[in-house]
Amino acid sequence: MDTVLRSPQQTVLIGPNRPFVVIGERINPTGRKALAAEMAAGDFSRVIADALAQVQAGAHVLDVNSGVPLTDEAEIMAEAIRLVQATVDVPVCIDSSVVAALAAGLKAATGKPLVNSVTGEEERLEAVLPLVAERGAAVIAISNDETGISYDPRERFRIAKKIVERAESYGIPRQDVLIDPLAMPVGAVQGAGNHLFQIVRMVREELGCNTICGASNISFGLPNRKTLNATFVAMAIAAGLPCAITNPLEPEIMAAIRAADVMMGYDDNCAAWIMSQRQAAASGAAPTGAGDERTSRRAAREARRGQ
Amino acid sequence: MDTVLRSPQQTVLIGPNRPFVVIGERINPTGRKALAAEMAAGDFSRVIADALAQVQAGAHVLDVNSGVPLTDEAEIMAEAIRLVQATVDVPVCIDSSVVAALAAGLKAATGKPLVNSVTGEEERLEAVLPLVAERGAAVIAISNDETGISYDPRERFRIAKKIVERAESYGIPRQDVLIDPLAMPVGAVQGAGNHLFQIVRMVREELGCNTICGASNISFGLPNRKTLNATFVAMAIAAGLPCAITNPLEPEIMAAIRAADVMMGYDDNCAAWIMSQRQAAASGAAPTGAGDERTSRRAAREARRGQ
Repeated sequence: MDTVLRSPQQTVLIGPNRPFVVIGERINPTGRKALAAEMAAGDFSRVIADALAQVQAGAHVLDVNSGVPLTDEAEIMAEAIRLVQATVDVPVCIDSSVVAALAAGLKAATGKPLVNSVTGEEERLEAVLPLVAERGAAVIAISNDETGISYDPRERFRIAKKIVERAESYGIPRQDVLIDPLAMPVGAVQGAGNHLFQIVRMVREELGCNTICGASNISFGLPNRKTLNATFVAMAIAAGLPCAITNPLEPEIMAAIRAADVMMGYDDNCAAWIMSQRQAAASGAAPTGAGDERTSRRAAREARRGQ
Repeated sequence: MDTVLRSPQQTVLIGPNRPFVVIGERINPTGRKALAAEMAAGDFSRVIADALAQVQAGAHVLDVNSGVPLTDEAEIMAEAIRLVQATVDVPVCIDSSVVAALAAGLKAATGKPLVNSVTGEEERLEAVLPLVAERGAAVIAISNDETGISYDPRERFRIAKKIVERAESYGIPRQDVLIDPLAMPVGAVQGAGNHLFQIVRMVREELGCNTICGASNISFGLPNRKTLNATFVAMAIAAGLPCAITNPLEPEIMAAIRAADVMMGYDDNCAAWIMSQRQAAASGAAPTGAGDERTSRRAAREARRGQ
């Protein structure tokens, strides 16, 4: 069962037996001081540059987070969404912990956006789901609730199930709910990767829902996070994960995703793989994907200059 | 259920929920002209160097192939096995299509070796299984037979089951049979990776056997084979593959295997991962694993010099 997202002219399908969908994570002021200051001051040039660079690097959807403290997040979200969708023709993922910002983003977005996110907490369910239903959007359901994040995969599955059922009671079909099973750091929770793979399989088989996750948290605190993240995403794809919020400017991640699509048979005649390798070779880089990074960085620089 | 291999002083356990076991593939004259000429002339210095370098790079078992055309393969195998086990304390995998060479290798080997391989062909079953049973060795069962290699995962599973049952009739317990589901090239057979992942799961769940595979054939004919092979191994580990015959001198492969062990919870406290990254950093290389390569190359050079 596919989750359908739309931009003004593009349709993105997220589902079993389809090429993996990359949701670019870069437009997020959390931990990016310069970006946060610019967004607070109404300067969205870096947002536009990040949008261009991520789509050029292979992102199919862009996450837009408006989390700048002590600002009107709703206003920032609306402006960022408008500018992103005026720059690149991809669906957006409206990312905020502030309900008013989600509402403003939903109003500003064109096509069918994704809302990031709702949890199993009563207050969030009641605040977010009506907005999603009214707009006919899709929503990310994070499998924690008032009691916290359980280490037990079955408990996280139970919360996912609760959110799906509640969403249906608001008229949101289950294919519009993407379950985020929550990737815990493997450095803190031994076997956290395997727990996530299990939940991904259970959600598909028992709930018939698609899953999503952030692909960076898993490696928190460990050395060589790039290789850990890339390996994690490939293994999650083997378990049935159809999309992730990640950094498309990271060539190791993108190479692993494209290679995993080849392994699963999602890349017809390996055409996308061969093209990505040709582009890397043409940019004069090593064939491991370093070329993608160079291309993306150049694109980002050019975009920042306003090209 | 663990498959147990032994060298004079080491025991290697292959099985579910254990760290992935790497069987070094380098001691193989196929496609290595210099090595083939040296082995034919009775010069095993490169065999010894390859043994040292692979174990230093992280191999737990060494495959020894004696396939030099127009020679006495049995004699070459016996000598190679003796020299390898006099150099490094790891179990060996005796690799030949010549039954007399397998017999000679079994006689020369110390500990409990692995035989590579038997197929579902009647003639091979009858020739190889008695040797394996008599020596109390383990054996790789390749899931093809007289009719060829089926594209249908269920058909390959059926042949695997037949070999396991035949082995048991010779007194070889099923934990001593490692099923090789055969990785077809994804460039030729779309979705070949996913087929293999399915068979790995079926063999574990329905036969209770461990699996093994070569990790290089999958990428045949495609660009950037290293990344494809590394991604493939990680995904196969997620599906339950406990060991593979591969090249430990390839840092991308080893990094993916170590990262996959972390994700599955097989690397206690991520200790092996952190140590491998420290070693890479200490050798002055980038943390992506390039350091491993340098270390291994240096080891190989030193070993060739007779150190």
